[in-house]
Amino acid sequence: MTEQNPQTVFVANRGEIALRIIRACRRLGLRVVCGFSEADRNAPYLALADASICIGPAAAAKSYLNIPAVIAAAKLLGADLVHPGYGFLSENAEFADAVHGAGMTLIGPKADVMRRMGDKVQAKAAMIEAGVPCVPGPDSVLPQDPDAIAGIADEIGYPVILKAAGGGGGRGMRIVRDRASLAEAYMLTRQEAQRFFGNPDIYMEKFLEKPRHVEIQILADSHGTALWLGDRDCSMQRRHQKLIEEAPAPGIDRALIAEIGERCAASCRAIGYVGAGTFEFLYEDGEFFFIEMNTRIQVEHPVTELVTGLDIVALQIDVARGAKLPLAQDQIITTGHAIECRINAEDAETFAPSPGRVTSLHLPGGPGIRVDTHIVAGSEVSSSYDSMIAKVIAYGANRDEALSRAATALGEMRIDGVKSNAALHSELLADPGFKVGGVSIHHFEHWLTAKEAANG
Amino acid sequence: MTEQNPQTVFVANRGEIALRIIRACRRLGLRVVCGFSEADRNAPYLALADASICIGPAAAAKSYLNIPAVIAAAKLLGADLVHPGYGFLSENAEFADAVHGAGMTLIGPKADVMRRMGDKVQAKAAMIEAGVPCVPGPDSVLPQDPDAIAGIADEIGYPVILKAAGGGGGRGMRIVRDRASLAEAYMLTRQEAQRFFGNPDIYMEKFLEKPRHVEIQILADSHGTALWLGDRDCSMQRRHQKLIEEAPAPGIDRALIAEIGERCAASCRAIGYVGAGTFEFLYEDGEFFFIEMNTRIQVEHPVTELVTGLDIVALQIDVARGAKLPLAQDQIITTGHAIECRINAEDAETFAPSPGRVTSLHLPGGPGIRVDTHIVAGSEVSSSYDSMIAKVIAYGANRDEALSRAATALGEMRIDGVKSNAALHSELLADPGFKVGGVSIHHFEHWLTAKEAANG
Repeated sequence: MTEQNPQTVFVANRGEIALRIIRACRRLGLRVVCGFSEADRNAPYLALADASICIGPAAAAKSYLNIPAVIAAAKLLGADLVHPGYGFLSENAEFADAVHGAGMTLIGPKADVMRRMGDKVQAKAAMIEAGVPCVPGPDSVLPQDPDAIAGIADEIGYPVILKAAGGGGGRGMRIVRDRASLAEAYMLTRQEAQRFFGNPDIYMEKFLEKPRHVEIQILADSHGTALWLGDRDCSMQRRHQKLIEEAPAPGIDRALIAEIGERCAASCRAIGYVGAGTFEFLYEDGEFFFIEMNTRIQVEHPVTELVTGLDIVALQIDVARGAKLPLAQDQIITTGHAIECRINAEDAETFAPSPGRVTSLHLPGGPGIRVDTHIVAGSEVSSSYDSMIAKVIAYGANRDEALSRAATALGEMRIDGVKSNAALHSELLADPGFKVGGVSIHHFEHWLTAKEAANG
Repeated sequence: MTEQNPQTVFVANRGEIALRIIRACRRLGLRVVCGFSEADRNAPYLALADASICIGPAAAAKSYLNIPAVIAAAKLLGADLVHPGYGFLSENAEFADAVHGAGMTLIGPKADVMRRMGDKVQAKAAMIEAGVPCVPGPDSVLPQDPDAIAGIADEIGYPVILKAAGGGGGRGMRIVRDRASLAEAYMLTRQEAQRFFGNPDIYMEKFLEKPRHVEIQILADSHGTALWLGDRDCSMQRRHQKLIEEAPAPGIDRALIAEIGERCAASCRAIGYVGAGTFEFLYEDGEFFFIEMNTRIQVEHPVTELVTGLDIVALQIDVARGAKLPLAQDQIITTGHAIECRINAEDAETFAPSPGRVTSLHLPGGPGIRVDTHIVAGSEVSSSYDSMIAKVIAYGANRDEALSRAATALGEMRIDGVKSNAALHSELLADPGFKVGGVSIHHFEHWLTAKEAANG
């Protein structure tokens, strides 16, 4: 906890993560200011900031994604540091440059590191160099020669997956199960990559049939210390959107995770990474395969906070201010189990967003329950943004206790005025497959299909 | 976690502790049922129970204190166990007898142990026997001979305090600073004791000038194991009503606390105590002085839960069901610091209860924050019961972090429709004397006097 001159943090985000950042700044005794869109003008968390200013209309492109407006607001409110949260501009290197150019400090890695990790091919090359295991496949974009491509696929072994180098979020990807369909799949993926991401480059890797999503949280300071803060399992996903996250990942050899964690920390030291970050992996049959690095705080950071006792957002701000990390790797001890359910304002059947006014709200509480939400009774859930309105996080001495508390908490929760997926979470927590632990990233789709079949 | 036949718990209480008990039963997979007064008919926590039934009108004497009504309701709803919570019938040995007589198990100690510990003189005698340090003074009620009384006071040394043997809560007590005022003080206290408690017996002990209130949480099973779960400091009190509690007690030698804790656990073994309980002490100048034992769960149990990671209410139910405690004394490790603020619906100036309808409510959340409350927007706060409507509990890696998080949480809290003492708590947390730690039980009154003087 350094005492330096930079004393004002600008929150370049909204919703629960804006409130989370405000709470961390209060903890650190820092001044904290916010930019808000017209849709968020009446958000109660703004009253908890020292000052706030409108940065544009509801549409994110004109407000939370509007770099000149965000920079101008931060300067006007006297910010020394800018916290980008997650989503929006949080992994935008151009924004990182603009923050730096305006004489402020971004709470995150340097722009060049962000650029390097934002490009999947470059990121993979960096990982291979640091000894972080990657999915089999060349660490360069594919050549355009069909025979060469087929040769690469033969070497990896089918099934393979084609991915846009600039892509993410499940778009610009295609599974290929045999040589006959390879050429056409390549052309289609290339066209999509150009259309969606403005970059036609494609790479190829081994396709894993039933992998789990397991990730490593890291935190690095500017003095050469990089720590890994344990692992998370985020395999319960719907269309690449995480629904449930937990820490630690159940049923995986702890010695293996420690080895992967050490390699992630080593790669942070190698690339000069500063801040919080996450190494995302696929895990199958006792093996980890790096998929990408997120160079920002993640939605699911609270589960790691609960099992480590650390305030990751506060530490993230500290290291951005130049502080040394106040602990060593052997002082990071994870205890118990934590689970997070993302409560979305959405229709339980169609998964369509359900914007509107929250007319009444009852949040759960009691032992082991943490709720992170910016919503109160009376809040308007805007259709302009992500539909996540709350995170219900349960901690227990073990996984069974954490799951049981999460189930009780979901049963207590009442939201009126908008639809929510709280009941869906209750069903998922009761699913025998999930209770055992270690479901694959395809589990939710299979579960849903089985449920729909059972309902006729 | 035993699997026995008794599977239904009746909650013989209301409000936040009723909800707390429901949560613990859910955790244990037990059926849980409630009795409610007419004033609590619409309380949302009742919907979380498996069944509930009206036990009488709003007036506690006719409902929550009405032993036949409570027993009848418990039997009707098929209860095997009865959880009395705190207050109401929780330390009523006649109720314990009635529960037993109706073939149910009280979640608490046996009636004879409750009786013994409920009588201050008998309790003190038991403590002296077990080596638990007590306030200097005879362990028997005073004789009626004025010269003998004066002789006892001389032996203890002035100031002394006279206390009704059957009293509590600050009534039936009188400080005597010299021999000249002793005889009159004795007569007045005796009259009060007769009037308030139906028992004119008085005892005398050393009066401590600036003590702290420090207590030891214990938990004992029916197999001879009794554990102490750490200490709490509850010195921030207004007229013997606790306002803020924290664990551990700041600035007290840990080895001394461990010694006192061991003696409390030993005395539980000696008296055959089963269940959760609290040994309350005054602490001054490095010495502990036993004042009384509470033979029930306490309001402030969450601070101990946060630093130990234990679910005391669940364990309390387990031991009542005959389970062995699942851990040994050396497995109880306290980590970090926790602080609880009791949020009352009351006028901040006059401290008068402020019943009414909660029109809107925003509870705090985020890292380290636990809220225990039965209140939602729309709840009616009845004038028939205690004015406490919520407990805001903050955990941190150290006291500074816990205090800082508590302050942030109080700043986030919004209650409309009833007045509350949330702002008073914010002021108390910011008080330099409190920040240092270790204030006496008189600190609040001094602080308030100083504040009122400053405000003219």
